Amino acid sequence: MAAALTAPQLIEKHRPTLDQALDTIRSRAYWSPHPEHPKAYGEEHGSLGPAEGKAAFDALLGGRFEIDQPGTEGRVGGEKSPYGIELGVTYPRANPEVLIPAMRAAMPDWVVAGPEARAAVCLEIIARINARTHEFAQAVMHTSGQAYLMAMQAGGPHAQDRGMEAVAYAYVEQVRTPGTALWSKPQGKRDPLHLDKRFTPVPRGVALTIGCNTFPTWNGYPGLFASLATGNAVLVKPHPHAALPLALTVRVAREVLAEAGFDANLVALVAEGEGEGGAAGNTGIAKELALHPEVRIVDYTGSTEFGDWLEVNARQAQVYTEKAGVNTVVIDSTDDYRGMLANLAFSLCLYSGQMCTTPQNLLIPRGGIATDQGEKSYDEVTADLAGAVDKLLGDDARAVAILGAIVNPAVEGRVKEAASFGEAVLESRALTHPEFPGATVRTPVMVKLDSAAADAADTFLNECFGPVSFAVAVDSTSDAVALLRRTIREKGAMTVGGYTTDPAAEKLIEDACLTECAQLSLNLTGGVYVNQTAAFSDFHGSGGNPAANAALSDGAYVANRFRTVEVRRQA
Amino acid sequence: MAAALTAPQLIEKHRPTLDQALDTIRSRAYWSPHPEHPKAYGEEHGSLGPAEGKAAFDALLGGRFEIDQPGTEGRVGGEKSPYGIELGVTYPRANPEVLIPAMRAAMPDWVVAGPEARAAVCLEIIARINARTHEFAQAVMHTSGQAYLMAMQAGGPHAQDRGMEAVAYAYVEQVRTPGTALWSKPQGKRDPLHLDKRFTPVPRGVALTIGCNTFPTWNGYPGLFASLATGNAVLVKPHPHAALPLALTVRVAREVLAEAGFDANLVALVAEGEGEGGAAGNTGIAKELALHPEVRIVDYTGSTEFGDWLEVNARQAQVYTEKAGVNTVVIDSTDDYRGMLANLAFSLCLYSGQMCTTPQNLLIPRGGIATDQGEKSYDEVTADLAGAVDKLLGDDARAVAILGAIVNPAVEGRVKEAASFGEAVLESRALTHPEFPGATVRTPVMVKLDSAAADAADTFLNECFGPVSFAVAVDSTSDAVALLRRTIREKGAMTVGGYTTDPAAEKLIEDACLTECAQLSLNLTGGVYVNQTAAFSDFHGSGGNPAANAALSDGAYVANRFRTVEVRRQA
Repeated sequence: MAAALTAPQLIEKHRPTLDQALDTIRSRAYWSPHPEHPKAYGEEHGSLGPAEGKAAFDALLGGRFEIDQPGTEGRVGGEKSPYGIELGVTYPRANPEVLIPAMRAAMPDWVVAGPEARAAVCLEIIARINARTHEFAQAVMHTSGQAYLMAMQAGGPHAQDRGMEAVAYAYVEQVRTPGTALWSKPQGKRDPLHLDKRFTPVPRGVALTIGCNTFPTWNGYPGLFASLATGNAVLVKPHPHAALPLALTVRVAREVLAEAGFDANLVALVAEGEGEGGAAGNTGIAKELALHPEVRIVDYTGSTEFGDWLEVNARQAQVYTEKAGVNTVVIDSTDDYRGMLANLAFSLCLYSGQMCTTPQNLLIPRGGIATDQGEKSYDEVTADLAGAVDKLLGDDARAVAILGAIVNPAVEGRVKEAASFGEAVLESRALTHPEFPGATVRTPVMVKLDSAAADAADTFLNECFGPVSFAVAVDSTSDAVALLRRTIREKGAMTVGGYTTDPAAEKLIEDACLTECAQLSLNLTGGVYVNQTAAFSDFHGSGGNPAANAALSDGAYVANRFRTVEVRRQA
Repeated sequence: MAAALTAPQLIEKHRPTLDQALDTIRSRAYWSPHPEHPKAYGEEHGSLGPAEGKAAFDALLGGRFEIDQPGTEGRVGGEKSPYGIELGVTYPRANPEVLIPAMRAAMPDWVVAGPEARAAVCLEIIARINARTHEFAQAVMHTSGQAYLMAMQAGGPHAQDRGMEAVAYAYVEQVRTPGTALWSKPQGKRDPLHLDKRFTPVPRGVALTIGCNTFPTWNGYPGLFASLATGNAVLVKPHPHAALPLALTVRVAREVLAEAGFDANLVALVAEGEGEGGAAGNTGIAKELALHPEVRIVDYTGSTEFGDWLEVNARQAQVYTEKAGVNTVVIDSTDDYRGMLANLAFSLCLYSGQMCTTPQNLLIPRGGIATDQGEKSYDEVTADLAGAVDKLLGDDARAVAILGAIVNPAVEGRVKEAASFGEAVLESRALTHPEFPGATVRTPVMVKLDSAAADAADTFLNECFGPVSFAVAVDSTSDAVALLRRTIREKGAMTVGGYTTDPAAEKLIEDACLTECAQLSLNLTGGVYVNQTAAFSDFHGSGGNPAANAALSDGAYVANRFRTVEVRRQA
């Protein structure tokens, strides 16, 4: 079959975008080719608008999700929306012993295509996903529990940006070495030595992407596209509660690959039925696949326990993990007390704190802090922050649009348990979702703890994923920074926040983050939040503390997904 | 104390060289700033000539090698030259629990200095080592057993090139991300969001370089300089039989660091006494240090067994290993039979085959090969190759200048054992070194095996380090390529050679190397040998088969030795 899209056509179409992405990862200025406004999508833009996206999603419900890939043996399914509806979608059940050899067989042509054609194919996949942003938004919303706007933005354009960023890094890494070189070494009076050299980036093998429940696309795309762009075949194993967004992704990828004349089996799905993955949702077939001798790359986002297991056991593979950490905000002083409170309140509420980047521990000097509204005692700061959260969530309709739904009963359990840890300066409330009565919606709880108390650290040094935060009283800012260092070193951190007007305190916080290797946001009081990072500019995670062994994205994230083979000949 | 050399001075001095190195790793053309001709060194060039180098080395013999580093507790030593002389040098015995904290304390200023100053300091260290090339040559010769010219070239300029190459990769990797960025995100009708971002490359911690016996500088410098240039402190643990070349290196590095105003403890030595390292020479204190929680990077060259142990056990560190493989040459046909024989004979003899890149298995079709001198049977090819070796080594003085000395009794034992594996088409002879009567000198042995024999693979698929090769009869070239694939996949390979005039056979060999990820040299018949690679142009190892998990040098070799910390502030 002749390819419907040739590689040169795709290169011509996407090269300007790739070049812009390459420029931006060098400048780290703001850029995105993927609009985040919902109204930027619709028929007039050649894409699905909100209603068409919803219709496309509705058409999937209760149906058989078909993917024509080898080794299909029966069906699996069982996703239930955190908004209380059954998705009722079933997926092909894959036999890896049939599927993986087919994926390996697909690779040689993909290797020959070279880095530029691979990048162009990846960008075409992302462009088609982008055109269906509102359909993906529904799928992300009804698997993660994110509110619609967030699912549409973080699960759509922001995820697409992160995928494209990985493609850009992968491309530039592969073309650092030229395709060919003529090497001539002088030999004094004798003739020089001449060699013709050819350098080919070759993939590691089959890459496994293990998806997570909360950000199936945002956390899944970087590894998927980094591996695919470097010539690997990619096996996508979604979280059993969040299969649909990645199943849609796999189907689009296979469609583009086939149209471009490549073997669709370069991307394939292994879906897992509800309950098959064990309590953690990801330890059944994921374990088996991660140890498969043909699987040479594993990308994983999820619990520390399984991430650590992968790092220790998947010895035949390069393993990239984003696990869990304990995120800290050091509050020393501020010249915008209201802005600080509003900013922190939003960070704590967004998606019910179910982000790996949400602050958990707010370290506040026991003696209070200096602000533009005068000295504020520890009790005042905590009460004012609780007030800011209450104000933000005062209207139920607005509240659910920020909070979304609780992703699973374990999170709900932690909210209940939090009340037993200490005095709650902010109590969690259950809200009824006006549109989805079956949704579990909880407002955040904030518990006051004193770092000087004997067992307080046992509580606040454990990751408590969900809408639970601790307002920890500390002796001083330098005490807070010591605790920050200990937290990053022992527990890891995806993010650190700091508020201070004092250059000495700022330097203390910065030095701690530089030494312990954590990403720091200082004095955020406006529309940027500590839990949000922008692709092409911000690093997500550092790869240098226990929360993650990789950062999104940098050279290290892509450089070891391929190797370079040199063939030299006497010239 | 004011620095004797400022960072700006060093940058001014070395920036042109760094730029040339950066250009060359992009073009991969020939370049070296380090002359390899012995006469290029001497007083008129501002360096030590051969006699001065010898005098400097002689002055070290039987003496106390002083390094003024913290935590010194007594002395160790015991190196014995493979040429039969006792070196009698003793080194400080280090207490890592004192030394490592001092190394960590040295790092903050090194981080602040930034990538360009670090690169310049590294290049100054290399330049000073280069000026003492003949002194290092003596030290390498009398620890590795290499012949003088090889010790001078491979242990001198070629090792310095590999060190500089690592510095170039480290530099470019760190400056891919700008130091600062202004990020402005449009917000429709509202004011844009502004953030000031600062990006700092931060080191992983203390890096451990575990040296090998045969190429202490060539295999030691890439890791040492890659780690130092990326901001880490480097603890150098030489092989107990080859401490002197790395002890000299550490002393030069400390001298330059101190003169440039940095803490000399950024580079330190942990020497180990003879016999303390266990039978493998590297498993005593190396094991202990490799598991030290402050050690975050390990570079190792040596046995597969200990390399595998490091990869599995040193979980707190990034581990870069070059282990052992089984190198194959596929002989299908040639249009320069004499050139092929001469080239292969030299490859087998050089340093008595004690290179990780020396061919071990020569796969030759049972039915013979086509050559410019007509068809040659398997027996003719093996006999002619044996003859070429005999001719090359016909004169004892010339022979020892190629062979050098046998590095240790285990190699000598393997030479003896080889005769029991099958018919020796080439028998090993013991030679007396005209200058060093105590040297152990052995010519290579080549044993004929048939791949169809039941137990032949048990022999030739084991690495037999030293001057032992197997002429393996195979059914056909495609049989040879199947065996090549199996060998790379199961045992790993640092190098693969091929001789063919048939495009179809060439493609088979190339495809095998691309799929199994091994570096291939085709039809070498002149002055380039399969066991030699040139820095800035050739990759040493692929990092994609079991022989090594890294290649010298590429982005992956440096990208994970540091992390990037971002500090963002509301603008």
